[in-house]
Amino acid sequence: MIRFFFVFAFTVLLQGISTGQTSLHQYIFDQKNQHLWLTEYQQFLSIPNVLKDSVNIARNAAYIGDLLKQNGVAAELLVSGKPNSAPVVFGEVLVPGATTTLAFYAHYDGQPVNPKQWAEGLEPFLPVLMSDRLDKGGKSIPFPKADEPVQPNWRMYARGSSDDKAGVFAIIKAYETLLKTGRKPSVNIKFFFEGEEEAGSINLDVIFKKYKEKLNADLWIICDGPRNISGKKQVVFGVRGDVNLDLKIYASKRPLHSGNYGNWAPNPAMRLAQLLSSMKDKNGKVLIAGFYDDVKPLSESERKALAKIPAVESILKEDLALAQPDGEGKSFMELLTLPTLNINGMQSGNVGSMASNVIPTEANAVLDLRLVLGNDVNRQVKKVVDHLVKEGYKVIDHEPSDAERKQFPLLAKLVMRPGGYNAQRTPMDLPLAQKVVDAVETTIDYEVVKVPSAGGSLPLYLFETILNAKPITIPIVNYDNNQHAENENVILNYLWEGMETMAAVMAMKK
Amino acid sequence: MIRFFFVFAFTVLLQGISTGQTSLHQYIFDQKNQHLWLTEYQQFLSIPNVLKDSVNIARNAAYIGDLLKQNGVAAELLVSGKPNSAPVVFGEVLVPGATTTLAFYAHYDGQPVNPKQWAEGLEPFLPVLMSDRLDKGGKSIPFPKADEPVQPNWRMYARGSSDDKAGVFAIIKAYETLLKTGRKPSVNIKFFFEGEEEAGSINLDVIFKKYKEKLNADLWIICDGPRNISGKKQVVFGVRGDVNLDLKIYASKRPLHSGNYGNWAPNPAMRLAQLLSSMKDKNGKVLIAGFYDDVKPLSESERKALAKIPAVESILKEDLALAQPDGEGKSFMELLTLPTLNINGMQSGNVGSMASNVIPTEANAVLDLRLVLGNDVNRQVKKVVDHLVKEGYKVIDHEPSDAERKQFPLLAKLVMRPGGYNAQRTPMDLPLAQKVVDAVETTIDYEVVKVPSAGGSLPLYLFETILNAKPITIPIVNYDNNQHAENENVILNYLWEGMETMAAVMAMKK
Repeated sequence: MIRFFFVFAFTVLLQGISTGQTSLHQYIFDQKNQHLWLTEYQQFLSIPNVLKDSVNIARNAAYIGDLLKQNGVAAELLVSGKPNSAPVVFGEVLVPGATTTLAFYAHYDGQPVNPKQWAEGLEPFLPVLMSDRLDKGGKSIPFPKADEPVQPNWRMYARGSSDDKAGVFAIIKAYETLLKTGRKPSVNIKFFFEGEEEAGSINLDVIFKKYKEKLNADLWIICDGPRNISGKKQVVFGVRGDVNLDLKIYASKRPLHSGNYGNWAPNPAMRLAQLLSSMKDKNGKVLIAGFYDDVKPLSESERKALAKIPAVESILKEDLALAQPDGEGKSFMELLTLPTLNINGMQSGNVGSMASNVIPTEANAVLDLRLVLGNDVNRQVKKVVDHLVKEGYKVIDHEPSDAERKQFPLLAKLVMRPGGYNAQRTPMDLPLAQKVVDAVETTIDYEVVKVPSAGGSLPLYLFETILNAKPITIPIVNYDNNQHAENENVILNYLWEGMETMAAVMAMKK
Repeated sequence: MIRFFFVFAFTVLLQGISTGQTSLHQYIFDQKNQHLWLTEYQQFLSIPNVLKDSVNIARNAAYIGDLLKQNGVAAELLVSGKPNSAPVVFGEVLVPGATTTLAFYAHYDGQPVNPKQWAEGLEPFLPVLMSDRLDKGGKSIPFPKADEPVQPNWRMYARGSSDDKAGVFAIIKAYETLLKTGRKPSVNIKFFFEGEEEAGSINLDVIFKKYKEKLNADLWIICDGPRNISGKKQVVFGVRGDVNLDLKIYASKRPLHSGNYGNWAPNPAMRLAQLLSSMKDKNGKVLIAGFYDDVKPLSESERKALAKIPAVESILKEDLALAQPDGEGKSFMELLTLPTLNINGMQSGNVGSMASNVIPTEANAVLDLRLVLGNDVNRQVKKVVDHLVKEGYKVIDHEPSDAERKQFPLLAKLVMRPGGYNAQRTPMDLPLAQKVVDAVETTIDYEVVKVPSAGGSLPLYLFETILNAKPITIPIVNYDNNQHAENENVILNYLWEGMETMAAVMAMKK
């Protein structure tokens, strides 16, 4: 309790007590409001958000619609009309006198989950409040009672807690904060909450084309991804592109006893290992011919911005308990401006207690290629296909027939998943973007980190090519959030500060 | 029906109708008996037989004990006294006037199962009768009514149907057949049915030492493994040894977003792929230093026997739809006389619909090393450890501490599973073994295939070192039985012919 009163008094002292108006910061760090939001956020995270679960996807959209309506914004569902697709939840606020329109983007769907991989006591869609990060000794704690403070370092564990329901929630609650503190936005606002981002935003182009007029805006604010690893707030001017490949290697048609056939029957797991290892050297450099050839070099201003970004390597090595990163000594940030080839998953036969002495029939891998400016999805995938051919493989796109199996000693099925897209970068000197940066900086006492391109991906090229608009990204969550993996979580203070950031942008100087 | 009568008439004509006594063949191929055995065998296979399921392991032992008792043999459980161990079901028949004792070995436990990998409609412990092999268009069929023939090419699908409840069942029913046809064995018989073979017979040495007197025998007949791929019956004079290794590769302590960290954070799946691919060339030759160095060359008589074994490569290539086997052109049988390094399973992250854009924290593989005469388990495993060290790995036997993770760029956990053992070979000119071969040949009209060493493994060295006895193996099941994998099955005719083989051996010439 002593700590609570101290924090509250300090906050009141610092932030606008002299103006007579409750400051954004005061309102957001008011214990009462945080209690309410905590409960609301838990409800939101309880709704499963994996795309193929269409019933719950609809429940998520309805929940977001209600959040908007509670703030007087009529919610509308924008639909692609494609089967099994998720709607965009859209809302609009026209502000008298405003001459600029900002559109705010976040997504409410989450990455697929394997509940078995989550830590004991945690489930993807039963949000749990934890006293700290799990591997730092964090324990599950009950929700605070009305008179108990919400500690800033607490974490909420659930799929989507960081990626990206945090964005949806922060944007709507930022607007609510403006209203509740008697402010109005300085810009017209459009809310745009997507439900198919983790599937590669497969229908975003259709939505953009169908609702082009409605989606007109001067700048898009993308609220997704983590803040700088140093803990500082950052504004990001670009993203990598992304495409996934399913790779499958075949051997004998039937699984075989590893003794009765061992040395004669080929092992598909070994073949896959040999193939994958031919793609990268031991420093993580991709060996596929021409893989880096079409990368567009960074501009002078991007190079300068890169040099100013805090070095995070030692923090990361400590935090991840890593002795030696990949990348031949290049900096973390520089490596994010190069294309990647990552193994998301690899499987053949069984390991652990279900392993048996068998030669499996097939081996699977899922690859993730990140693209940078200059790369093209089809061109990049073609390089992988060519590499397989160079390694002696017959590359097919279907399950092989017996005739194909008998004809080709090395047989690989390679399928590009739908939804692959190219990278995008917005020039760092765009005037409106500079105003946004200034607005973010009203909430902090340091220079915001400006990043030419994030390592992650969003199909931001669509904003340029279809909507004729530039996007910039303002991420809000902690970097150590286990995004895309088991035990995803958000630090509460990042959620609150994210609201404050978004509110400051909505109220930016004209 | 026409086919049934034809087969029956032909059988009667061929086999001993003139002697006045029902022949072994007549009795075993009598429709009535096969109907009964089919039902009994289904019951037997319905009892799950994975070692860790101790309740069902006990039920299996009890079931086998009942089968023996039905034939007047008192069953006894031989126990190692180790926790969670499975008993040996033992029985003994003393034949007046017999001067030779043959002990018959089979095992009732099965390899671990992953039910999800079984074909639709099949479950490991719900035995199903199929009209043919699954991938040859076999369909599930109801059990035949009393007046319907049991077709010889039908298959029973279930875990253990071939490996090795078939051995247990054939041995007991062979003895039953002798009794029911008014014969008596020419030798004293010991029945020995193990329950821990698939776990590497981890307590067989304890049992052998504890019950050494009781287990005294002139020769052990091991009924396990498949008949020759050509379809011919075979007698096998040796086995490879076997040892399993669990290999685990580490990278970042937490799973990471593949975009936000891609190119900087090492990928454990790629490291595992690189490590595994360093172990074998593209022809399947093991590259680990000294891997083949201590192999004892085949004797002259073994070389000759090897040369007489039917070539099965073209059958196998056709059946398995393989364009190109491993082995640099060496023959199938020659490759079985060399040590192996096989990947049983390999896993990192997720593939398929659960794949996400993540850099996993670890990658696992299970390796299976088969050993031949001259190899030693500890020496062979040491070669693998040395190879990991040569590849730059710090090799540990425990989950790494953060301090270890931060100290060693490449960290591998390598654990040898308990139960590894060396190869064994019985000299092919042993006189008693020759008598057994002759007995088997009374049931066929061709020369039995004599194999110096099978590719598979059993801890037969224990028979030599503890019991001072030689073992030979008489396998009975079809080679295409999916032993150790999903969709295990047995062709019914092989089961019946297996009974006949065992009965002939029990009644062999003195």
